[in-house]
Amino acid sequence: MFGSPAVLAAFADTATVGRMLEVEAALARAQARTGVIPAEAAARIAAVCAGAPAEVIDLDALAAAAVAAGNLAIPFVRQLTARVAALDEPASRYVHWGATSQDIIDTAMALQLRQALLAIEAELLALGDACAAQAQAHRATPMVARTWLQHALPMSFGLKAAGWLDALRRDLLRLERARAQAAALQFGGAAGTLASLGEAAPAVARAFAAELELALPALPWHAHRDRFVEAAAALGMLTGTLGKMARDISLLMQTEVGEVAEPAGPGRGGSSTMPHKRNPVGCAAVLTAAVRVPPLVATLLAGMVQEHERALGGWQAEWDTLPQIAALAAGALRQMREVVAGLQVDAARMRANLDLTHGLILGEAAMLELGGRIGRLPAHHLVEAASRRAVAEGLTLREALARTLADRADTPDAPDTAPLLDAEALDRLSDPANYAGQSAAFADAAVQGWREAVAARGR
Amino acid sequence: MFGSPAVLAAFADTATVGRMLEVEAALARAQARTGVIPAEAAARIAAVCAGAPAEVIDLDALAAAAVAAGNLAIPFVRQLTARVAALDEPASRYVHWGATSQDIIDTAMALQLRQALLAIEAELLALGDACAAQAQAHRATPMVARTWLQHALPMSFGLKAAGWLDALRRDLLRLERARAQAAALQFGGAAGTLASLGEAAPAVARAFAAELELALPALPWHAHRDRFVEAAAALGMLTGTLGKMARDISLLMQTEVGEVAEPAGPGRGGSSTMPHKRNPVGCAAVLTAAVRVPPLVATLLAGMVQEHERALGGWQAEWDTLPQIAALAAGALRQMREVVAGLQVDAARMRANLDLTHGLILGEAAMLELGGRIGRLPAHHLVEAASRRAVAEGLTLREALARTLADRADTPDAPDTAPLLDAEALDRLSDPANYAGQSAAFADAAVQGWREAVAARGR
Amino acid sequence: MFGSPAVLAAFADTATVGRMLEVEAALARAQARTGVIPAEAAARIAAVCAGAPAEVIDLDALAAAAVAAGNLAIPFVRQLTARVAALDEPASRYVHWGATSQDIIDTAMALQLRQALLAIEAELLALGDACAAQAQAHRATPMVARTWLQHALPMSFGLKAAGWLDALRRDLLRLERARAQAAALQFGGAAGTLASLGEAAPAVARAFAAELELALPALPWHAHRDRFVEAAAALGMLTGTLGKMARDISLLMQTEVGEVAEPAGPGRGGSSTMPHKRNPVGCAAVLTAAVRVPPLVATLLAGMVQEHERALGGWQAEWDTLPQIAALAAGALRQMREVVAGLQVDAARMRANLDLTHGLILGEAAMLELGGRIGRLPAHHLVEAASRRAVAEGLTLREALARTLADRADTPDAPDTAPLLDAEALDRLSDPANYAGQSAAFADAAVQGWREAVAARGR
Amino acid sequence: MFGSPAVLAAFADTATVGRMLEVEAALARAQARTGVIPAEAAARIAAVCAGAPAEVIDLDALAAAAVAAGNLAIPFVRQLTARVAALDEPASRYVHWGATSQDIIDTAMALQLRQALLAIEAELLALGDACAAQAQAHRATPMVARTWLQHALPMSFGLKAAGWLDALRRDLLRLERARAQAAALQFGGAAGTLASLGEAAPAVARAFAAELELALPALPWHAHRDRFVEAAAALGMLTGTLGKMARDISLLMQTEVGEVAEPAGPGRGGSSTMPHKRNPVGCAAVLTAAVRVPPLVATLLAGMVQEHERALGGWQAEWDTLPQIAALAAGALRQMREVVAGLQVDAARMRANLDLTHGLILGEAAMLELGGRIGRLPAHHLVEAASRRAVAEGLTLREALARTLADRADTPDAPDTAPLLDAEALDRLSDPANYAGQSAAFADAAVQGWREAVAARGR
Repeated sequence: MFGSPAVLAAFADTATVGRMLEVEAALARAQARTGVIPAEAAARIAAVCAGAPAEVIDLDALAAAAVAAGNLAIPFVRQLTARVAALDEPASRYVHWGATSQDIIDTAMALQLRQALLAIEAELLALGDACAAQAQAHRATPMVARTWLQHALPMSFGLKAAGWLDALRRDLLRLERARAQAAALQFGGAAGTLASLGEAAPAVARAFAAELELALPALPWHAHRDRFVEAAAALGMLTGTLGKMARDISLLMQTEVGEVAEPAGPGRGGSSTMPHKRNPVGCAAVLTAAVRVPPLVATLLAGMVQEHERALGGWQAEWDTLPQIAALAAGALRQMREVVAGLQVDAARMRANLDLTHGLILGEAAMLELGGRIGRLPAHHLVEAASRRAVAEGLTLREALARTLADRADTPDAPDTAPLLDAEALDRLSDPANYAGQSAAFADAAVQGWREAVAARGR
Repeated sequence: MFGSPAVLAAFADTATVGRMLEVEAALARAQARTGVIPAEAAARIAAVCAGAPAEVIDLDALAAAAVAAGNLAIPFVRQLTARVAALDEPASRYVHWGATSQDIIDTAMALQLRQALLAIEAELLALGDACAAQAQAHRATPMVARTWLQHALPMSFGLKAAGWLDALRRDLLRLERARAQAAALQFGGAAGTLASLGEAAPAVARAFAAELELALPALPWHAHRDRFVEAAAALGMLTGTLGKMARDISLLMQTEVGEVAEPAGPGRGGSSTMPHKRNPVGCAAVLTAAVRVPPLVATLLAGMVQEHERALGGWQAEWDTLPQIAALAAGALRQMREVVAGLQVDAARMRANLDLTHGLILGEAAMLELGGRIGRLPAHHLVEAASRRAVAEGLTLREALARTLADRADTPDAPDTAPLLDAEALDRLSDPANYAGQSAAFADAAVQGWREAVAARGR
Repeated sequence: MFGSPAVLAAFADTATVGRMLEVEAALARAQARTGVIPAEAAARIAAVCAGAPAEVIDLDALAAAAVAAGNLAIPFVRQLTARVAALDEPASRYVHWGATSQDIIDTAMALQLRQALLAIEAELLALGDACAAQAQAHRATPMVARTWLQHALPMSFGLKAAGWLDALRRDLLRLERARAQAAALQFGGAAGTLASLGEAAPAVARAFAAELELALPALPWHAHRDRFVEAAAALGMLTGTLGKMARDISLLMQTEVGEVAEPAGPGRGGSSTMPHKRNPVGCAAVLTAAVRVPPLVATLLAGMVQEHERALGGWQAEWDTLPQIAALAAGALRQMREVVAGLQVDAARMRANLDLTHGLILGEAAMLELGGRIGRLPAHHLVEAASRRAVAEGLTLREALARTLADRADTPDAPDTAPLLDAEALDRLSDPANYAGQSAAFADAAVQGWREAVAARGR
Repeated sequence: MFGSPAVLAAFADTATVGRMLEVEAALARAQARTGVIPAEAAARIAAVCAGAPAEVIDLDALAAAAVAAGNLAIPFVRQLTARVAALDEPASRYVHWGATSQDIIDTAMALQLRQALLAIEAELLALGDACAAQAQAHRATPMVARTWLQHALPMSFGLKAAGWLDALRRDLLRLERARAQAAALQFGGAAGTLASLGEAAPAVARAFAAELELALPALPWHAHRDRFVEAAAALGMLTGTLGKMARDISLLMQTEVGEVAEPAGPGRGGSSTMPHKRNPVGCAAVLTAAVRVPPLVATLLAGMVQEHERALGGWQAEWDTLPQIAALAAGALRQMREVVAGLQVDAARMRANLDLTHGLILGEAAMLELGGRIGRLPAHHLVEAASRRAVAEGLTLREALARTLADRADTPDAPDTAPLLDAEALDRLSDPANYAGQSAAFADAAVQGWREAVAARGR
């Protein structure tokens, strides 16, 4: 429902058949180039394969026959062979020469996966740029950090965006590596030995891989699926990053919090009778993907336990699952790109929410200022007492601290603390912007890291 | 039950506490080096932390307090502080200075994970070497390839071992990368801003990372967990590879197949009253891990959806799950290393099993030999007919082919095929060793790839 | 790819929209019956809803709008309202009166799920009958029991089928219960309070449930999803049972075992050039489902953690996942029904395989016969010795036992055992059919249990 | 870390061994009662088995030997036999008579599971009572319903608690059924035929089951695991319910919401320096379980695909996973019982939060009141306009409605609506308590349903 058009297109039924035709054409051309089959036959096969998938192959008949055959390639090759034979009987003898069903299915999947990953990486670059823009713009915009869903200490909104950004950078690197791994030719023939090609096998394999611009592995990998599973795992981690972002944003959009909002749009998450509602529909779509993808990755991991030279279930489980993972991740990515690119940030509300606890979140700042002099534990006890007092007497922490320190100055055991926090110090301590630590520096570092990663990709 | 001692030790309760002590000591030293806390205080803290974990920390009290506190670090710091205070009250003020619970827990986990991954990689190198030895020794040992659990074509046992080996090579590379990623300092303080350290924060962080020989990320990653999840995913893929190997070996050990056997040993899989039984106990342990690990990886992926600056459930779910994944993968690895290193290979039985189908598995060889002359489809029909005849009349394929070709030679429409397959040709076609294709070459390539990967690691 | 037509039809896009129309019609009728809306309006709404889904609703526009809206029901209601308004403006005011999107989506899903479960149960009854037939026909057909994939002791094939059957009986009962639980009305309005219906709410809810023949829960269950999850879990267990059956059958079909075969059929698992191959395509499809379904059940379990009165991700994750589970389970069930109904059982091969270990699997029989006299341990030692001897000297166990007992009779410490096993006793012990224990009785019991369950269902 | 003592005790190592001893004793007694073994031998065996587990069995040696043996029962029986033999050699011949390892392991697990489920149900009854108390006490306490994490409409807190309660009622029924299913004897001997017991087998099985008060299945179920998986699935659904409750409560505890709080306690979720923090530690523990349990249920479902008469991995995967599921569910349950029993409900804050949107959440109430007269759509447009006006002009909805209606009354096309909402009507519409619909009635119904379920259990 929430897909990315580019990725859905990559795995559409016609795309699958189109890729299989592309693979058969490449195989024929490679075999012609290496003298294994006649050049005219290869040309004829390639010409047929260049047609529109739905015109070359009867998709309904294909689907029906696949159930009994156990895979798509068996009836596909039968149809393709008939198609070529109708034009050129001798050429049809060379369709699918030396290959096995899995060679075609896996290589087509490698092509589809490469296409999908490239589209995903492009979208990821756009999302990263949007996060980098937020991280920069809000490098010093104060907001409260929340741990356990409770107000903790000040930070900047830019730091939150920087955390997203740096995770996306790692996701990008993982996807690039996974793509390099997954974009590999599968070519082994019925038993993974290429026996039917005799001495010509290595040359054919090289030419075949070159035709499709795929890597040529040292040996076929019919029953070893980690190449695809690594891509799925990388997409799973990306979805996790996106889910974390969606969790953050949807929490920040709560009626009671109101610090950010998804971009508005016609028919988008609004409720006509409840204009106060700005439903996080983009985040909901992302969170849906984040619920669905992890178990699908587990499916592929579990499917790796394959029998001998061709599996009974583990391989077949990939066919729908891998596209689903890619589609869910891509859909989530697209939603999140729209959300972050158009995110409405309410800095005033962020600032206002920082005061909800009447300064109590600045207890650590006070404690540290005091701790430098009287030690961590005594300072801790003192601030703890002031904080309790603030709560009990309805004071701000500033007021409670001033009173507690004043009281304490009267006692004989701590004559040294009272002067520490004069009005100016208390003012300073009461401004959360003064206790944002490395927020801005971390935001800058993440942006810098992102730019370097993007630049390295360009090279 | 089937653990690896090294990995179980890495995650034992005392090891966890030991690593936490190591982290607190490193933090204190780093802060002393950067002038944040007094050198004497750091020395005292480090001295206490250097004690035996179970003597420094009351583990039972720790476990009990952790439930109410919600994590291990809160009561841990309380105990450690008290311990230091008993010796040196002023020093105790600097225990855990500027850090948050998650800094300690995550950094300790990073240390444990690094240790576990190093142990796993060492074992993986040993398993890879054992597979390389099998791939080499049996590069040309004929066995039947099985697809759909049915006899397909000849291959060599070395090719099967080479498939395992090349997958292990990829696993090794993934684990190295994952280790580099996961061995990272976590240091952000309560809100991930290091606010409590003021200007000194960057210097402290650098020194802290250096003390532990961990990478220093651009910013804290409290609620972004992909570093650990990548390690889990890599271990998940390794377990998948091992599971595939165990599936293969346990199937080859079946009473009816008997081509390989796990090494025998006292109390190991034997049945005293059933001496014909050689239970695949190592494989069973590996398959158990292969059932259990994929969902655990999904747990970590699902846990990535974390709230704001500290999570509610997603983070905590890692604490048992990550060690379980490492322990299961390591245990499976150790079992598989023992199995492959001591694997009993029955080449005679492999050869005998190749004949179970009376030569029918050589139909493709015959088809191709014929196909070169009369085209793929006619050759296909001819061999198909011969194969059916073999089954129907109880002949070997050689016999059936000879008769079918003879019959055909009598017909006017195919005067050219009969002489193709004289007795010598039929003999040649009937030896499966002559139809192993690239089996040996692929085995050599995998061994070569493994050696290069190992050499690259050494550099 | 391997679906059940009935279940795929239940969840097809037009079916979803059709069910939503059915729900809106029922709501309108219920509100007319209870005087909440005018009878003419309800009649008009119901008349529109009775149209063919694809004619009432523009499905492409619906899909496009659903992305921005976050669910299907919002644009659906908009279209339906416009459709009614075009005919009868006043009536259109009462479309979807008092309901919320989730009421319509969940209730439509409950209807679809009921339909799917009924179809699945019907298929399950057919599979159970097929298993019962196998259990009866082969109640005493000897085959070897295999533990750890090794020959263990004799059993009957009927006992294996009885194990399947009894598991299917439990699956049937679980599905019936789950169906009763899941076939429940969802009706709460925007906040689950039915506030917009005022005092009439309970009466409307009762009438609404009655219209659809659904159970009326005590209160709405928008964010409590166990009703649907229970159905998913029951389907997960069914798929597990089917997977176990497919594992058994595919192992029994191995070239080296050959005890059963899936039914043959055109284009079904055969390999034209390898006529010895009978690929377990039905089993492969079932095993594929058995790999895919468990993680999907985990998805639904994980999705139960829903926010307040409407979820952000957990609910939406059901929309594709629940139909996928039902479709995979139903497809697997249909495949397995075909497999078992047409299963080719080779009793002669079963009997021959029993002898593969030269009688060693009868060691326990011998041990017990002897144990009754000389105690378990001595008998154990004696049989163990004979078994080792059989292996070492290439004897059958019968021969080795005879010799070992003869040797022993010559020793002074065991004068009593030799006569125990005379030739007749040895003959008896050597026939595996004599050591099948309760195989036939257990098979009968399972058949009896199945019949009672089917009869109880009828009532 | 967050376990339930009762359930952890049920699955402790000594408990496992203790249950195995109990099973062996019951077997011996059953065989004595049926004349299969001598009464004195049974008495001796039972006497040894009655000892403290750690004194009868060397647990360290057991664990060490289990790795090589592949399960716990093989070395366990060896030790037990030796132990009995030391006292009474003849009796030792009858230890474990006719049983197989899996009989003992599974039956012990059934006993452990029954014990754990009984403890869980007891805790669930307590939690349900606590929820019922909340549902009753707050049946009419107004709070805002939140959909998409946005304010929607009024409801009562009692209705929220009622939703929890009714889900817990269904969980209770599922657990009871699952317990009845799982508390079953496993007894089949090495091949599931009980061949070694000859004619006495049925009588022994009956007596064995009776000794342990377990159900006697129609036949052994060694490789059919749904009995245990059903229990796991029921626990998974319970954990889902608890996770939903924890999600609700932790969201309600947010600093910005503050409507409820977990009970306070020493060391429990408080932060000494941040007294405003009331960390939802109980909820975090529950959410941790809710992340971890679903994949573990998937493990058991996946493990159901077992080979022949004894599995290779699927069975073994249960040994740690089932206890983990039970422990996580039980720990979560205990935490949630404490949380709900001591929940601090801030009704004033709930009421105050209802006003955060200045009455906009009452738009539906106004719309319906108007809709009865002018139709749903016109009323919708009117309220929509008023709502937008409220937002734009900073008015409450009441004020905006009054003005919009006044404006509209001046237009010729709608002379009838102005008088509809006089001041009294507007007052009424502005009180959320007047728009809680069936909240209280639903709360009552859930409490009633719970009481009936508890009463039915008593019977």
